[in-house]
Amino acid sequence: MSIIRIGIVGYGNIGKGAAKAVAAAPDMELVAIFTRRDPEALKTTDNTPVYSIDTAETKTNDIDVMMLCGGSATDLPEQGPYFASMFNIVDSYDTHAKIPEYMAAVDAAAKNKTAIISTGWDPGYFSVMRVLFESVLPTGSTYTFYGRGISQGHSNAVRKVKGVKNAVQYTVPIESAVNSVRSGAKPELGPGKSMVRECYVVAETGADKDKIEKEIKTMPHYFAEYDTSVVFLEETEFLKNHSTMPHGGMVLRSGNTGDNAHVMEFSLNLESNPEFTASIMTAYARAAYRMSQEEQYGAKTVYDIPLSYLSEKDRLTLIKEKL
Amino acid sequence: MSIIRIGIVGYGNIGKGAAKAVAAAPDMELVAIFTRRDPEALKTTDNTPVYSIDTAETKTNDIDVMMLCGGSATDLPEQGPYFASMFNIVDSYDTHAKIPEYMAAVDAAAKNKTAIISTGWDPGYFSVMRVLFESVLPTGSTYTFYGRGISQGHSNAVRKVKGVKNAVQYTVPIESAVNSVRSGAKPELGPGKSMVRECYVVAETGADKDKIEKEIKTMPHYFAEYDTSVVFLEETEFLKNHSTMPHGGMVLRSGNTGDNAHVMEFSLNLESNPEFTASIMTAYARAAYRMSQEEQYGAKTVYDIPLSYLSEKDRLTLIKEKL
Repeated sequence: MSIIRIGIVGYGNIGKGAAKAVAAAPDMELVAIFTRRDPEALKTTDNTPVYSIDTAETKTNDIDVMMLCGGSATDLPEQGPYFASMFNIVDSYDTHAKIPEYMAAVDAAAKNKTAIISTGWDPGYFSVMRVLFESVLPTGSTYTFYGRGISQGHSNAVRKVKGVKNAVQYTVPIESAVNSVRSGAKPELGPGKSMVRECYVVAETGADKDKIEKEIKTMPHYFAEYDTSVVFLEETEFLKNHSTMPHGGMVLRSGNTGDNAHVMEFSLNLESNPEFTASIMTAYARAAYRMSQEEQYGAKTVYDIPLSYLSEKDRLTLIKEKL
Repeated sequence: MSIIRIGIVGYGNIGKGAAKAVAAAPDMELVAIFTRRDPEALKTTDNTPVYSIDTAETKTNDIDVMMLCGGSATDLPEQGPYFASMFNIVDSYDTHAKIPEYMAAVDAAAKNKTAIISTGWDPGYFSVMRVLFESVLPTGSTYTFYGRGISQGHSNAVRKVKGVKNAVQYTVPIESAVNSVRSGAKPELGPGKSMVRECYVVAETGADKDKIEKEIKTMPHYFAEYDTSVVFLEETEFLKNHSTMPHGGMVLRSGNTGDNAHVMEFSLNLESNPEFTASIMTAYARAAYRMSQEEQYGAKTVYDIPLSYLSEKDRLTLIKEKL
């Protein structure tokens, strides 16, 4: 088994998760971490060398797949095409509406490289399920629920409210809505009928808590359409109980073959959203390496990849042991 | 969109389900059903022409994919290689231990055809999940639960007991075991600790019910290792309440990234096992057609197929709408 040499670009939560996931993969080796920060100042959990991101172009012979662990808002639109011109890449680009545009930019750059974009769990494994489910039950409805877990976007929105010192927001699926779908019913569920929003807030000293609560609950797009709760906490309790990054969710399809009803469900319950996302990216990094060996170049998605490419086991072993 | 012309071999429960699934597919047309019975005597739900199975070799220009809907014990070992020499095929061969041998025989025959074997839900979508799950969480345990649903093999075993006129056996997952896995625990679960077996039996007039019950419950391999219940019913009640073919089950992976635990779950709740199996076969029939257009010949499994090939939507539409 040849060892796949991995580089990581960006050492935030996902980058750290990627380092862990690569260490757990029997066929991979982490050879370098690239950062925009001062490489000397970066503390890594093992002895992986850290380089300035500007030196990556000198390492094209040393790295088989580059895992791009930056954000979708500003990092990846620039880094995706740049790195795909020199390396096989994998990323977790997750701005759903802009994926076709991003894919086109990466594809144009990845002339002799394989670039698997938008992996992770949504987009990623949830996207896989939507196609697996709808391809076999064309008559039916698909439902997605998120949580229980922290939404970074909603947490940031709460933190921007005047008088808020710190905050997190948990998205929580409404159990009765989930059970209605599981029962084979096909309810009409707007966002407000499928999820509630729980906010845990540390207020600045002397802040008007009633005003903060009202401002959160009436915030358009983010909270106004939802059943939202706001709980104020002391900072010590907040730091103790709300410093991890759990998440999860489920995709369900309630469909029919004639008179017979069927329900398919995929669910995730994750203690660390970034570590799980990075674990999925790592499996697709393996696929990127293998596709590049076959000269299958350009931008790819989870829809383009035979599943055997994700596993460290070879195809015949999978057929014998897992089919 | 070109219409894929489908033939069905074998018009039992799965064959009938395949006819329904093909009718529901916007890009497919059912052009012929082949049977070993007298074609004149076969009643179909629409006006699809029915032919003797021996005439199939004269129809190679009329059919794009042949869906083999026979059983794994005796039909498919013969029919798989035979039809794969002339047609693209899809089947639901499910004798797990013999899949490599069966695949080799089909592969040798499918020189200029695409043959996707062992589709359905297990093997099939459950196999897909095992690889999706284990590829991203290499540290962990995978669990499979079956039911609530009818096991044909166990039902047949009960029907062979002396004094039994008719019977069905339901396999039922043990809820506490499922919940233990969902909680992130990694229990050691033998078969008897993950499922119970419920038998519904119509006894012959005058039969010794105590003896029947004892013989069922002590039957090695089938029931002795399980918590088994036996309920005797009148034939009218039996026919009224136990004539459908529900099934289901779930695959779970409880795994870790360092200290963080994650649980992935896929579950099915099916009112008609054969119709759902046939629906999955139909999606893979579409994939077989597309792979044959690309001259990707030989025996394939669910591990070899990019997921976009399963959908009637084209790749770019999927990326835009489902990713």
